[in-house]
Amino acid sequence: MSMMVNLNADMAEGFGAYDIGDDTSILKIINSASIACGFHAGDPLTMRRVVADAKREGVSVGAHPGFNDLWGFGRRRIDMRPDDLEYMVAYQIGALQALAAYSAVKVTHLKPHGALNNMAAENSDYAMAIGRAIKTVDRDIIYVALAGSEMEKAGRALGLKVAREGFCDRLYEDDGNLTSRKLAGAVIKNPEVAAKQVVDMVVHRTITSRSGKTIPCKVDTLCVHGDEPTAIALARHVREALDLSGVRLVPLPDMTFD
Amino acid sequence: MSMMVNLNADMAEGFGAYDIGDDTSILKIINSASIACGFHAGDPLTMRRVVADAKREGVSVGAHPGFNDLWGFGRRRIDMRPDDLEYMVAYQIGALQALAAYSAVKVTHLKPHGALNNMAAENSDYAMAIGRAIKTVDRDIIYVALAGSEMEKAGRALGLKVAREGFCDRLYEDDGNLTSRKLAGAVIKNPEVAAKQVVDMVVHRTITSRSGKTIPCKVDTLCVHGDEPTAIALARHVREALDLSGVRLVPLPDMTFD
Amino acid sequence: MSMMVNLNADMAEGFGAYDIGDDTSILKIINSASIACGFHAGDPLTMRRVVADAKREGVSVGAHPGFNDLWGFGRRRIDMRPDDLEYMVAYQIGALQALAAYSAVKVTHLKPHGALNNMAAENSDYAMAIGRAIKTVDRDIIYVALAGSEMEKAGRALGLKVAREGFCDRLYEDDGNLTSRKLAGAVIKNPEVAAKQVVDMVVHRTITSRSGKTIPCKVDTLCVHGDEPTAIALARHVREALDLSGVRLVPLPDMTFD
Amino acid sequence: MSMMVNLNADMAEGFGAYDIGDDTSILKIINSASIACGFHAGDPLTMRRVVADAKREGVSVGAHPGFNDLWGFGRRRIDMRPDDLEYMVAYQIGALQALAAYSAVKVTHLKPHGALNNMAAENSDYAMAIGRAIKTVDRDIIYVALAGSEMEKAGRALGLKVAREGFCDRLYEDDGNLTSRKLAGAVIKNPEVAAKQVVDMVVHRTITSRSGKTIPCKVDTLCVHGDEPTAIALARHVREALDLSGVRLVPLPDMTFD
Repeated sequence: MSMMVNLNADMAEGFGAYDIGDDTSILKIINSASIACGFHAGDPLTMRRVVADAKREGVSVGAHPGFNDLWGFGRRRIDMRPDDLEYMVAYQIGALQALAAYSAVKVTHLKPHGALNNMAAENSDYAMAIGRAIKTVDRDIIYVALAGSEMEKAGRALGLKVAREGFCDRLYEDDGNLTSRKLAGAVIKNPEVAAKQVVDMVVHRTITSRSGKTIPCKVDTLCVHGDEPTAIALARHVREALDLSGVRLVPLPDMTFD
Repeated sequence: MSMMVNLNADMAEGFGAYDIGDDTSILKIINSASIACGFHAGDPLTMRRVVADAKREGVSVGAHPGFNDLWGFGRRRIDMRPDDLEYMVAYQIGALQALAAYSAVKVTHLKPHGALNNMAAENSDYAMAIGRAIKTVDRDIIYVALAGSEMEKAGRALGLKVAREGFCDRLYEDDGNLTSRKLAGAVIKNPEVAAKQVVDMVVHRTITSRSGKTIPCKVDTLCVHGDEPTAIALARHVREALDLSGVRLVPLPDMTFD
Repeated sequence: MSMMVNLNADMAEGFGAYDIGDDTSILKIINSASIACGFHAGDPLTMRRVVADAKREGVSVGAHPGFNDLWGFGRRRIDMRPDDLEYMVAYQIGALQALAAYSAVKVTHLKPHGALNNMAAENSDYAMAIGRAIKTVDRDIIYVALAGSEMEKAGRALGLKVAREGFCDRLYEDDGNLTSRKLAGAVIKNPEVAAKQVVDMVVHRTITSRSGKTIPCKVDTLCVHGDEPTAIALARHVREALDLSGVRLVPLPDMTFD
Repeated sequence: MSMMVNLNADMAEGFGAYDIGDDTSILKIINSASIACGFHAGDPLTMRRVVADAKREGVSVGAHPGFNDLWGFGRRRIDMRPDDLEYMVAYQIGALQALAAYSAVKVTHLKPHGALNNMAAENSDYAMAIGRAIKTVDRDIIYVALAGSEMEKAGRALGLKVAREGFCDRLYEDDGNLTSRKLAGAVIKNPEVAAKQVVDMVVHRTITSRSGKTIPCKVDTLCVHGDEPTAIALARHVREALDLSGVRLVPLPDMTFD
């Protein structure tokens, strides 16, 4: 049985006259697109267009809900009551489903954006609220969760499919957490280094931590970025390395989950 | 075969800390609730709550999409490109469907709000854009359209179910259009007068126009308002008059459409 | 020399079609109005109108800036970079100054709203950012700050006039902090009890804490609320008690600050 | 006495994470910058930064208010009540004044954005509402108005300074109106043609219309664009042609107005 993994990226994060990220290039690299849903970024026209583009490239689509904070691009932490948060996430899933209907495409995963992702990784109330929104709107939606986070736990507690996410361009600590961006070298810029980390993750199920220790790791999906030319080059290199290692790259709904 | 008609009202038009309208009282009078979807009014928590309340009262729910203009409460005309408009309406339908999933309720009709309703009644591009959104997201959704308007035409051209809407509290002109609100007496405040107009509309399929002429009229649904105590009293009186006349009041999905 | 104190309240917190609070009644009780500036609440028309009403009642006006979160009514904590926060506050002050120009009125104080007030009371970065905005836009604006908070410190460090704020309807702990709203009895509902607390604060410069201890206290301004009929009744009673005790109630610009 | 004219451009139209236009390049060409004020585009941080950049380049700053429509980038016509519009414009002027205070710079002109500009050019109610906002907030602010438009008339009726605006990159009809963008050739792309039109406008006070007729014309300021590399090249060429013709390019407050 061959190894497989998924490559995902955030998309459709423009708004009206504003453009951001190179969706066209990144769609040729990834297997699953997380589509901004109009709260931290994204507008109905952009959502509809990027879903259609994803379909054309054989890329599955998911919801990428965020805080209601366009000015902050969803990167500011906002303290919300869990019920407001839950219904806000449900709202965004439904909105995307309607625009995906134009392409006769299903919304098959969900990955929270920015500060919402960071908060839900740490905070069980947030993680569960997001999980309940998924479960109510469509229990087949795959919850993309930082491996080992509160989101992974919430998804499992609710009986949802969970895709554990890893990062090709971030250093890890001995305990499996990401090295803080505040430390020099926390973000991997060298495509060779990123490619090696990813192949280790997928083929050997290990990561070499910042201290040099080999730690175990299970990832279903790898996050790549499309916001800078260097990020796209790195993503492309990661993809090629996985291909060369005989790893199959598949959309999230084609994965099997424990 | 008994006569039937539907009573509808706009609901869930609060926003966060802001409350507007007496949803609790009006839900006991109407058969179908048009739920604001977060653009001109409404927030996810309110949408979810009012759908649940409607279900408890046996009231069917529909989408009440509006312009993206909370400040103007959706009452300002905005010139949008038809494709932006279409996807904006689809977005709002999907958002409501997700929140209706919490009550295992289907969104069964759509009625545009305020200035969007006025523009779509006159403008074929707008009326068709809304109709295409319905057709793509769920072709079984009933398009609530001012009788004789561009919306009615668009709905029929697209093969959608159309519910022709009449008003219990507005005068009509000889040509079947509503008397402009700028004319004194255009809005009917007297519950007896409103009740008589409505019974004539439903039972005799006629209206007496402002000039005193009897004109033909076909309506499937009547709009009532819940924003003032006097409006609620009028709506209650209209309902009683219909009951006394032997007219059955039914949710929109229980109507039969030509 | 006679004792004096100021009564302040938050105002102009409606938005478009939405109304909240009874500004007309509360304006007859207070001396200084903190006007919402369009971010957590308030719109240009409302701001202009309430400034005019305040002038007519001899009430001074101040800015009541909040987070950019209408849905949350400014009650949700948002993590902002201090420079974004500073310019956001400056923006809101300037906007109000322009609308106050219609009444030939100066903006003479500033009091942050809701979660921004709570965060700035604890967080020096926030408190200083707000203070720098005041200092740049108009260094004569009085910074209304919870007595003993980071805001008071920031205001003094920047050489601004600071009005220490106390509460007529909240219990205090032995250390001078407010009793958490989560504890039963934290909010004083009895007008007699509130009036006694306020007279003690102003005349004797002491508070009786929840545990019964007498603690020292210096306040320049007292916050009253206008969002409920009972709050207005309590505010009115507090005002009468102060009048009877010979305390002069004055607008903030008429106070003298250490 | 030497001829003089002003070059203006719209700026600061990014929002949060979104960037648009090449403000750095265009600031080196123009004399007066119209700064977006947070409604159709612009955020407090961007406003503050671009004012500082303008000051460094010797460029005067003005307000560039727009409709409250970030999604539509202020390009959609919105029907507003004149009083809402007036206070909305005042609000935006004040907000910019506060951020200009950081650079000790005065806001010396105002030019409406996009659809607001188009509507105010045709509609006296809109043009007067904007003029009254200027007059109330700072009567020394120069009203930049399409030559011959309702804005020019409103400005003169209110006793304001009016700068008549011309376009270097648009064809004109025999009656002095701009040729509709729907006609081929309506937008001038050739830098030589644009430069000739501008020199004629300023030096000879005439334009050659689309039909070849020579028509009289008086302009105080010329609008250039910075949203595309070709627009910047054209603007640079226009500036050089004016320099070579001995025309002095000055900030708006240095102009003399009839």
